[in-house]
Amino acid sequence: MNWNKIIECVPNFSEGRDLAKIDQIVAPFRARPGVKLLDYSNDEDHNRLVVTVVGEPQALRDAVIEAIGVAVRVIDLNHHKGQHPRMGAVDVVPFIPIKNTTMKEADALANQVAETVGRLYDLPVFLYEKSATAPHRENLAAVRKGEFEGLVAKFKLPEWIPDFGPIHPHPTAGAVAIGARMPLIAYNINLSTNNLEIATNIAKNIRHSNGGLHYVKAMGVELTERGITQVSINMTDYSRTALYRAFELTRIEARRYGVSIVGSEIIGLVPMEALVDTAAYYLGLENFSMQQVLETHLME
Amino acid sequence: MNWNKIIECVPNFSEGRDLAKIDQIVAPFRARPGVKLLDYSNDEDHNRLVVTVVGEPQALRDAVIEAIGVAVRVIDLNHHKGQHPRMGAVDVVPFIPIKNTTMKEADALANQVAETVGRLYDLPVFLYEKSATAPHRENLAAVRKGEFEGLVAKFKLPEWIPDFGPIHPHPTAGAVAIGARMPLIAYNINLSTNNLEIATNIAKNIRHSNGGLHYVKAMGVELTERGITQVSINMTDYSRTALYRAFELTRIEARRYGVSIVGSEIIGLVPMEALVDTAAYYLGLENFSMQQVLETHLME
Repeated sequence: MNWNKIIECVPNFSEGRDLAKIDQIVAPFRARPGVKLLDYSNDEDHNRLVVTVVGEPQALRDAVIEAIGVAVRVIDLNHHKGQHPRMGAVDVVPFIPIKNTTMKEADALANQVAETVGRLYDLPVFLYEKSATAPHRENLAAVRKGEFEGLVAKFKLPEWIPDFGPIHPHPTAGAVAIGARMPLIAYNINLSTNNLEIATNIAKNIRHSNGGLHYVKAMGVELTERGITQVSINMTDYSRTALYRAFELTRIEARRYGVSIVGSEIIGLVPMEALVDTAAYYLGLENFSMQQVLETHLME
Repeated sequence: MNWNKIIECVPNFSEGRDLAKIDQIVAPFRARPGVKLLDYSNDEDHNRLVVTVVGEPQALRDAVIEAIGVAVRVIDLNHHKGQHPRMGAVDVVPFIPIKNTTMKEADALANQVAETVGRLYDLPVFLYEKSATAPHRENLAAVRKGEFEGLVAKFKLPEWIPDFGPIHPHPTAGAVAIGARMPLIAYNINLSTNNLEIATNIAKNIRHSNGGLHYVKAMGVELTERGITQVSINMTDYSRTALYRAFELTRIEARRYGVSIVGSEIIGLVPMEALVDTAAYYLGLENFSMQQVLETHLME
């Protein structure tokens, strides 16, 4: 990979079961110059497909626009059932600056894609996260509230006029949220208790919405097979709320219940910097710079 | 950088003062396809130049052979004084497998360079570390013992016949050690005491030669300006003796003296994996793989 600028995109599509359709949606990311498909995984319970792709900005933009077009054509939300909340055939399309790119450039790319798919596919688009045009549109959960079935009612509210595309839902593809955001780390901390209430309380204490860490979303989860529970975390900006801070605060909160941490796990991809920063914290590294990491130079 | 295989070389030259000569020695690594000069730094007290370069195996090999030729021509060890021990104009040339390469390939490259410079420049070569042809030649300190001035006497001993080149020292360039090795991490741990004896005792307790960790070399050092001391460590194989293990063992040994760790520092470059592994240890990461680090894919 010899690209100067790299942006990541993690589009979520509302199709987790029909492998032929999934193949069609993923096809625009394959064997394309300037684009590399890193991963895609479909979940049958969630009836959802998550694609992870990196690329040069323009090449990535064109591939994403094409894939959205395929999904709008082959997915009909009127017949979609799954555990995961969704408001569109293409539910959410985040753009993440990875290398030699700023959040501003990711935002510009999100806007280009939003404008194009609104126009080409007659699809209403909400800009969200760092691309949001108003504070109440930053949070994806708020944007998606009411889901596909609630879009007609939502569009009658002046505060939910879409940013691009028509002011009515697409009949089969609903609406889509597009925006720039920081890399998200899915991070779970396992506890030495099978008491879900304890995990839930700890999750509440560490998360932003209940007085905890700014860039942490968290909930308690039961791991029935292992007979333990878990604080399941989304780290929404590891550069501001460090991974080790969520870990150490969970340990501190768990102490209240005489519970300890038995381990933790990272789901999917994690930026090198998040782990290097964690190592630097525990080793108490002085004057350390990412330029000292050999791989930083190998990617130049 | 779009290379499939990457090897690193960190040649040490016995010239730390004459900038014109240093420029000549470094020149073969500049603006050369398949080779990237990452760093070079000269130390006047040590009278020594350390170059860090990465490249595709063949391109790197040719550049290193050329640079050795320049150094043999411009450096005269008969007039060399410095704090650092040395036995040659080119003192030591390690090859380190970095990406898609094995230790065996780095060893093969070391052998090619050793054979070529022995023949072209009439320079005796000892293979050392992973390339050593006998156990007593693995350790660079043993190979270099007696230094430039002791080479004539050393070459009379049957156990110190060079592996390549003539069985007599080069009159101005002495001899050189060439070999494959693991990436070396220069890692220092700072202590809350100004008592050098304590730092020295801790260094002894953690290092291999005195019963400590296998891939750790260590000595006590005084940081007079800060009024503290330091355990100065060379981690010679971080994949077998992890960075955190040296850190935690130092903490444990320091306890004996009522001393604590005030911080640590990495000098120069460190492979990403050493720090990622450290983070994984402290977070107790379960089922973690380097494939989950985003940058692993960006380098493919």
